Amino acid sequence: MTFEGMWRDLAPVGRSASSGGYFRQPWTSAESELRAWFTEAALARGLELETDALGNQVAWWHPPAGASAVGSAGVVRDEGTPESAPGGSDRHGLSRPAVLTGSHLDSVLDGGAYDGPLGVVSALAAVDLMRERGVVPTRPVGVSVFTEEEGSRFGLACLGSRLATGATRWTDARERRDRDGVALPDALATAGLDVAALEDGGGLLDLSGVGCFVELHVEQGRDLVDRDVAVGVGSEIWPHGRYRFDFTGEANHAGTTRMEDRRDPMLTYAMTALAANKQARLSGQRATFGRLEVAPNGTNAVPSRVTAWLDARCESDAALADLVAAIERQGTERAGRDGTGLAVTAESVSGRVAFDPDLAARIAGVGGWPVIPTQAGHDAGILATAGVPSAMLFVRNPTGVSHSPAESAESADCLTGVEALADTLTELAR
Amino acid sequence: MTFEGMWRDLAPVGRSASSGGYFRQPWTSAESELRAWFTEAALARGLELETDALGNQVAWWHPPAGASAVGSAGVVRDEGTPESAPGGSDRHGLSRPAVLTGSHLDSVLDGGAYDGPLGVVSALAAVDLMRERGVVPTRPVGVSVFTEEEGSRFGLACLGSRLATGATRWTDARERRDRDGVALPDALATAGLDVAALEDGGGLLDLSGVGCFVELHVEQGRDLVDRDVAVGVGSEIWPHGRYRFDFTGEANHAGTTRMEDRRDPMLTYAMTALAANKQARLSGQRATFGRLEVAPNGTNAVPSRVTAWLDARCESDAALADLVAAIERQGTERAGRDGTGLAVTAESVSGRVAFDPDLAARIAGVGGWPVIPTQAGHDAGILATAGVPSAMLFVRNPTGVSHSPAESAESADCLTGVEALADTLTELAR
Repeated sequence: MTFEGMWRDLAPVGRSASSGGYFRQPWTSAESELRAWFTEAALARGLELETDALGNQVAWWHPPAGASAVGSAGVVRDEGTPESAPGGSDRHGLSRPAVLTGSHLDSVLDGGAYDGPLGVVSALAAVDLMRERGVVPTRPVGVSVFTEEEGSRFGLACLGSRLATGATRWTDARERRDRDGVALPDALATAGLDVAALEDGGGLLDLSGVGCFVELHVEQGRDLVDRDVAVGVGSEIWPHGRYRFDFTGEANHAGTTRMEDRRDPMLTYAMTALAANKQARLSGQRATFGRLEVAPNGTNAVPSRVTAWLDARCESDAALADLVAAIERQGTERAGRDGTGLAVTAESVSGRVAFDPDLAARIAGVGGWPVIPTQAGHDAGILATAGVPSAMLFVRNPTGVSHSPAESAESADCLTGVEALADTLTELAR
Repeated sequence: MTFEGMWRDLAPVGRSASSGGYFRQPWTSAESELRAWFTEAALARGLELETDALGNQVAWWHPPAGASAVGSAGVVRDEGTPESAPGGSDRHGLSRPAVLTGSHLDSVLDGGAYDGPLGVVSALAAVDLMRERGVVPTRPVGVSVFTEEEGSRFGLACLGSRLATGATRWTDARERRDRDGVALPDALATAGLDVAALEDGGGLLDLSGVGCFVELHVEQGRDLVDRDVAVGVGSEIWPHGRYRFDFTGEANHAGTTRMEDRRDPMLTYAMTALAANKQARLSGQRATFGRLEVAPNGTNAVPSRVTAWLDARCESDAALADLVAAIERQGTERAGRDGTGLAVTAESVSGRVAFDPDLAARIAGVGGWPVIPTQAGHDAGILATAGVPSAMLFVRNPTGVSHSPAESAESADCLTGVEALADTLTELAR
């Protein structure tokens, strides 16, 4: 199955006929279909498939007996990692044997086709290309799919990789509910997954044998467009966070209540949204209110409550803290004038992630690609934080638009990405 | 059954345990329960009940044979109205025989207990009180319940009375859909109502025999508090309208998209909401954005679209047109700067309604009550516009809060309202 063939297979799954965008929320029928597709793709290639109790998946290409540099048996199930004595590393610079690559298949609400799937399809296509070229890896090469990368359903991005790496504990995650009030364990059970294993403290992928992780992803800005190159290597992820802003006031009749008698949280919200934009614009950072819930949300009622989520990203951890504090301060000042209340809750905050500089340099050296930062969170950031040397490859996006049906990448650039990934994996799995 | 007994029966229906507010949307199980309650209340009093294909209801208290001033038979079913020759009126100043009183039982989302039900319960209690006092009406007295007064489900306030009076045609209304995409005919069918009769051009209450309509309602402001009286009489309803503001932009990634590269409709909305408030505050009018829909409504996506509903009310038709035009103009200017679009659609606009001044004076004369305007739309406004002399009685609301679980009225004031209504009906039905 070619890259184009795989892409064609995925195109209709979870696609909205009206917007053309994708709704591939985790543990829905769309995601089940994607998981079944990945399972079939892995088995058709003779890869060994692991699926954990969250629906995270890895398809393993094991080196043939005798070809292994470090011994291939039981790589991810093995508790012991023979070559990973403290401070030690093998002759290829990796302290643990396996090379992992992949991305995710879930989408934001009404998202694009590329964010996630491009990395999974490219990884499978890279394995195909390496085999065509007669490459015989001496290390296990795994193609991974982590679930709920976007956090579009349970509000915590990279939930699958966070749980698999231990960055988030199941006992904390299990309390999460989606917008319809469905608890995470119930969502998993509905999708036919083994919640009991999670409750027993297990059920998750064992990543202890993974020596490095490479995630290929469509670029979500215009850096590569400006540089006029098809592929780039990631240097770092900006610090970023999600903050819930609860604006509270007093519901009242929209007609009979004099303007001066109101305590309208919508006004406090509106001013805060404008302040956030201005603050970020002035400082070259990012601040977005893209999600909102209004209660009671009736045309003829002054709202009692507006809940809004701030997505903020900055070039340093200190700048992020300053930005959010400045927005909260301006919101609180306005709340004082509106007679409303404001409470801010940090739902998730990720500090700056520097990808492994040696690994980045090594990959950049393979094809002479530029090394660039990203403002988006990725599973590669979670694995990097968990101590797995990680790297990213970006494929040029002509418009820079992402998280939108308008997200795109040219076919030729995608194939260049596959070659870049195959070259990278060939180098890493030698 | 006393006023307090009826009030206790209604208290739990459609009440949210968490907010304490009411969710009594039309053609839901809550409204079915209310309709069953009203049916039982009517039959227990020996009133003749009519229910039309929308669920509008009238319970008729017919004068005894011989007591009628104008002939009582077939009042509402009769096409002919014997005393209503053009320009003519009977000796009581009414051109048609029946006296109608009542209100509605549906609520806004998370609304209060009084807005609507107070008028229905008070009407039944007034009938009881008149009977206790031995009043024998010479005209039919009807207690009415019009459905979807709030427009909380299908977006057009007073839908029940609009259809019954012909202000809105079924062929237009039938196209309406609720927030979940349910079409009005399907909602009616689900509630067990006779959609076929509506499709055949019938099925609605015949109001042609109604000589006047009196609606008692909790006050939704503080006018009576300021005047220190329990009851007032309505003089007019301010012009008001609902306008849909569609702000369109471009969905994009909240992290990777530079602030200057965005076309974010949330910013245009936020500025427009603040402008609307300022504009209304400066001119002593009312402008509210209380309902909002954001797409895709994801934390990490710049929205592609924000749809917001403006509720605007002014003391004159010209002032209303000016206010909405000024808000639209400021929104459009900001849209130009944000690279977004704004389209404004008037979903419903009601001109100023002056209640019948003779009727108001006559009612005010009964108890020496003040005559005051309201900024809220009511079925009484629809009937007045349809040529039925109409009036309103308001009962003091200590906080002035309405469309909120905090809406309230004191028990003593409610009973004063019942007496005022009984006195009014006694006078009108003599």
